[in-house]
Amino acid sequence: MVKLFGRRPRRSDSARPGARRSPSDAVNRVDLEELTPDLLSYLGQAAYLQLVIFETLGRAVATAPSIASKEAMSRVAGLSLAKHHGLTAEIVRQGAEPGPTMQPYVAAIDNYVRITAGADWYETLVTSYITSGLLNDFARQLAGGLPADASARITALLGADDGHEIIVAELRSAIEANPRLASRLALWGRRLVGDTLLAARSALAANGHPDEARLEPVFTELIAAHTRRMDAIGLTA
Amino acid sequence: MVKLFGRRPRRSDSARPGARRSPSDAVNRVDLEELTPDLLSYLGQAAYLQLVIFETLGRAVATAPSIASKEAMSRVAGLSLAKHHGLTAEIVRQGAEPGPTMQPYVAAIDNYVRITAGADWYETLVTSYITSGLLNDFARQLAGGLPADASARITALLGADDGHEIIVAELRSAIEANPRLASRLALWGRRLVGDTLLAARSALAANGHPDEARLEPVFTELIAAHTRRMDAIGLTA
Repeated sequence: MVKLFGRRPRRSDSARPGARRSPSDAVNRVDLEELTPDLLSYLGQAAYLQLVIFETLGRAVATAPSIASKEAMSRVAGLSLAKHHGLTAEIVRQGAEPGPTMQPYVAAIDNYVRITAGADWYETLVTSYITSGLLNDFARQLAGGLPADASARITALLGADDGHEIIVAELRSAIEANPRLASRLALWGRRLVGDTLLAARSALAANGHPDEARLEPVFTELIAAHTRRMDAIGLTA
Repeated sequence: MVKLFGRRPRRSDSARPGARRSPSDAVNRVDLEELTPDLLSYLGQAAYLQLVIFETLGRAVATAPSIASKEAMSRVAGLSLAKHHGLTAEIVRQGAEPGPTMQPYVAAIDNYVRITAGADWYETLVTSYITSGLLNDFARQLAGGLPADASARITALLGADDGHEIIVAELRSAIEANPRLASRLALWGRRLVGDTLLAARSALAANGHPDEARLEPVFTELIAAHTRRMDAIGLTA
């Protein structure tokens, strides 16, 4: 099972006393901050996810059907790479090395990448748009549970421009030129939201075994934002 | 035949009066500035070459054998992408659009990329190192023939860090771990220098039909710099 933003593998919770808030803080719903992994686990996962998003965008640059699309996607790839390097800089600031910090999460995230890889340029674009949107929303919610100074820096970094307006323009014009793309890409978007939220839910369950019902509002918000992203490209979520 | 840094296709030289210096400027050798294409032709080619170098580096990120190598190569990819975006900014500064400015050179450069694509990660690394080194040297020599203000900006941009010390470290440690790589990569380096300089020579011949013997010193310099790059990774050029 793929897990995104799980705690560090083989690390006992008893080693992090006081790191979680009391469950009584949240009555009707779980705030994701309760389930935030420790800072380096968070950063290792966020940085590696951003790196694989960059790789997907790099593939979109290499396989773009026109020079204009290639150039446009190179902008998005640059924004994604800058976020990755911002996250690795934060790892270094914490006194750790990026490689070893990301290493424990490589296998699970590579598996996620494998199951969410698109079959062609259009699906690849939808993948980078939809998965980066969902993962970014999820990561920003979890960032609330990090130490305050790191939380502020990371939230600002993740909130920076992700070039989505460029991807939206590419996808809208592609669908306009070939309306038959719409139903295939709508299905692909559903597959992606399913895979991504299952992986996120699985990680949360492993982090804190919260009451499933109390997690529901968090996922409802993530899905609402996803629906707005699908709307922006003219597709039904 | 692949041509790198040729003049704009289907554009008559008579449309550019005074753009070339008198051949009498150079007595014993050709200065490449005599053969510099017009600014937008130069920028279109330099920008697209930098974009395909980025694509090769993106593939090196995606196929890296370890997370440390992946992270290291992501730095190099970022530097290359920044150069590409610096060149497209220069295109915009000249009042043109990057896509249409690069378009006339896409087919020839894509063909060059196809014949210089490596068979595995190590060859891909050698390709990005050797071809970016040669093309950068060549582009910087040609930049001398551009209008002075653009020439200064472009020379500074092309002279910025290209991350070669990172690639050198990756290749040296790979060859140290597996000495049998050395002879294969040395052969690959020879193939690359041959293909690249043939393409450059072909473009120069098309630009100005210079006396081949007078071009020789220029190529001798390019090859000397190439030999130093091969030395740096412990290989014979």
